[in-house]
Amino acid sequence: MIEIDEARARVLACVGNASAVTLPVTEAVGLVLAAEAVSDVDVPPHDKALVDGFAVQAADVRSGRMPLQVIEQVVAGVVPTHMVVPGTATQIMTGAPLPQGADAVVKVEWTHVDPGASPPRVQVEDAGVQPGQHILRHGQLLRRGDRLLPAGHRIRAVDVGLLCETGCWHVSVWRRPRVAVLATGNELVPAEQTPGVGQIRNSNGPLLSALAREAGCEVVDHGIARDDPVALRSSIERGLGEDVLLLSGGVSAGVLDLVPDALAALGVERVFHHVRLKPGKPLWFGTRSREGGRTLVFALPGNPVGSLVCFELFVRPVLRALLGWSPAVLAPVSVWLATPYWQRSDRPTLVPARVARTASAPATVTPLPWAGSSDQRPLGEANCLACFPAGDCPYQAGQRVMIYPLDADTHDPSYGQPESPA
Amino acid sequence: MIEIDEARARVLACVGNASAVTLPVTEAVGLVLAAEAVSDVDVPPHDKALVDGFAVQAADVRSGRMPLQVIEQVVAGVVPTHMVVPGTATQIMTGAPLPQGADAVVKVEWTHVDPGASPPRVQVEDAGVQPGQHILRHGQLLRRGDRLLPAGHRIRAVDVGLLCETGCWHVSVWRRPRVAVLATGNELVPAEQTPGVGQIRNSNGPLLSALAREAGCEVVDHGIARDDPVALRSSIERGLGEDVLLLSGGVSAGVLDLVPDALAALGVERVFHHVRLKPGKPLWFGTRSREGGRTLVFALPGNPVGSLVCFELFVRPVLRALLGWSPAVLAPVSVWLATPYWQRSDRPTLVPARVARTASAPATVTPLPWAGSSDQRPLGEANCLACFPAGDCPYQAGQRVMIYPLDADTHDPSYGQPESPA
Repeated sequence: MIEIDEARARVLACVGNASAVTLPVTEAVGLVLAAEAVSDVDVPPHDKALVDGFAVQAADVRSGRMPLQVIEQVVAGVVPTHMVVPGTATQIMTGAPLPQGADAVVKVEWTHVDPGASPPRVQVEDAGVQPGQHILRHGQLLRRGDRLLPAGHRIRAVDVGLLCETGCWHVSVWRRPRVAVLATGNELVPAEQTPGVGQIRNSNGPLLSALAREAGCEVVDHGIARDDPVALRSSIERGLGEDVLLLSGGVSAGVLDLVPDALAALGVERVFHHVRLKPGKPLWFGTRSREGGRTLVFALPGNPVGSLVCFELFVRPVLRALLGWSPAVLAPVSVWLATPYWQRSDRPTLVPARVARTASAPATVTPLPWAGSSDQRPLGEANCLACFPAGDCPYQAGQRVMIYPLDADTHDPSYGQPESPA
Repeated sequence: MIEIDEARARVLACVGNASAVTLPVTEAVGLVLAAEAVSDVDVPPHDKALVDGFAVQAADVRSGRMPLQVIEQVVAGVVPTHMVVPGTATQIMTGAPLPQGADAVVKVEWTHVDPGASPPRVQVEDAGVQPGQHILRHGQLLRRGDRLLPAGHRIRAVDVGLLCETGCWHVSVWRRPRVAVLATGNELVPAEQTPGVGQIRNSNGPLLSALAREAGCEVVDHGIARDDPVALRSSIERGLGEDVLLLSGGVSAGVLDLVPDALAALGVERVFHHVRLKPGKPLWFGTRSREGGRTLVFALPGNPVGSLVCFELFVRPVLRALLGWSPAVLAPVSVWLATPYWQRSDRPTLVPARVARTASAPATVTPLPWAGSSDQRPLGEANCLACFPAGDCPYQAGQRVMIYPLDADTHDPSYGQPESPA
């Protein structure tokens, strides 16, 4: 039996290099840039009008030479063909390229067009026109070759506009890990069925699939394998082609805990079995070489909360490493305990809990009533796992406790600064 | 020109009833329960062993009547057929149903099986066996009919196991809103192309699509419409069948700002045009009836940051209302300003900014250097919009500022408690 930190270190040591792929940015939201994003254009690509109005020579207006002859109308997407010279103006729309010769734009609200004149003439009523007014200069915002987002940046929806504008439609990102999920156990029926006497529904399989998918992976759910050496082996084999295989059940000391033997028979090399942890002690971890890399195999406990705890402590860091997150392991966050808690175990214990945060006050955490590793009920209310060190020890409200976030909302890396355990 | 709050109230008043659909829970992660989730089973469904070992009568062991005759082996998924009577025991595996007559389970580590005996016999080395030990009683965790998650709960990956276990494979959730996106402008080329002279890439369309998709919607991107009344009308018409149509560009005062007229010609009724807001003033909003509801049409400014601001302030609340979020509008969060800031505008101004949070200290926000509504560069670093009221006013570090979160991580409703503006 090894400690949590050592188990995690051994798991992460088995993660190979992530692979980069090129995707359209709209399919890359949530993934991490494998290479920095660099602009291939100047922004704006030309001197451009920031308002609807008239492009003029400021000196013309300031000296009161009015009206000005309107020589052209320029809209966005069109290149001006006439030069603005003294005594002339070009009607211009927001975003349109500034004609040569013009050095200012006057808002349409400050102008008056003579309706009867031909050619048309415009009177400007703003004598305070300044050169450069309402103009964005060529390349003022961005230059070709400017670095926009660094390698390692996780692409968010809000980044998509900038990337599109600057020629980064195709981005190089770390590809989604492929994860196979297989639940084992004679007592299991598919979650969509009604269990018979002695049976229960498969909840671990869908739970692990959902967690891996939410983490950004492509998931293949292989359903349920029976506790039969031959059937088990053939089901496991189908999952060994992916980056990660998650099994649940069959790793304890029971007569039908056949998973470790089946894995050994398939050439999966054991890295460790059992972690000093509650729940989650039976965790088995090993690897097998395959073309292009190694498959990481986690055989998780059959109890759903044990399975969840192992996912959060050991599987999630692996998925993050493959996804290019740096660091792959978020240091757990230390928060104030909101209520007293009695810890009684010879193993570090992870308890479903709810962390409450406000923008103006430090976060506090409340462990939820919980009947142990097969009790999923508190998970509906939980948004983190609170971690209590091994030992028999009463904790008081106000003491520091480490938490591992449980839902996407609390996975924000900026959520908490790493701190040492209480 | 109306105020932000009034614009939002008018927009939300146009949102019809959301529609519920039934989905497999694995496809419902991120969606909101339209009806409470109720268990259809007792959990556990039978008295069950919590460890691998032997089911016994505690009194037998405590009185030292040893060894016990092993009458049966029970594994998970199998129903015991023999009753445990004084002098007998049943070998039992974790999760298996307890045989009748037994009132305790002894861990296998505390037992010794006589290898030569036939029938097999077991010696128990734990004289302190208590009735009820290592047994989870039928229905101890959950009863059929128990309410697991309330209507209004947003399903997270971590909820999937509980829902599967309790017969909630099919859940009733508010369906994903369908959103059409259409960018307008002669100057636009598709984001994957290289712009010619006077042209720019379409960044608004992909940005709005990504934001709506990240918010949980099904998105149809209709690409780019030219500034031509006929082409524009036919493109707009294709998007009017969805719940929401997002247009960008063509809503200012330019000669080719044809969108309001095209919408009017298609029977879209204007609710308002122009909001006292910077950037985002040209926002146009209207609705059109269709079979089964109303299409909400937002014509957003062509400048990308203006478009983003309008999405966050007006479109996101609509999408949340359709998705069943309650409240649909998250009260903006008030945080401490980290650096001084000069606000100079006659309109409330939203500035790309970065909020820094830790678990142990109040959040602070830093407005980012920004050249105005066409400058998307700070968005790569921003994770919120900081909102400054209209007026010419210097703000000091330490003053309170309202922020609107910008990325999924900061959309967590528990992130900040509503507070009144500074």
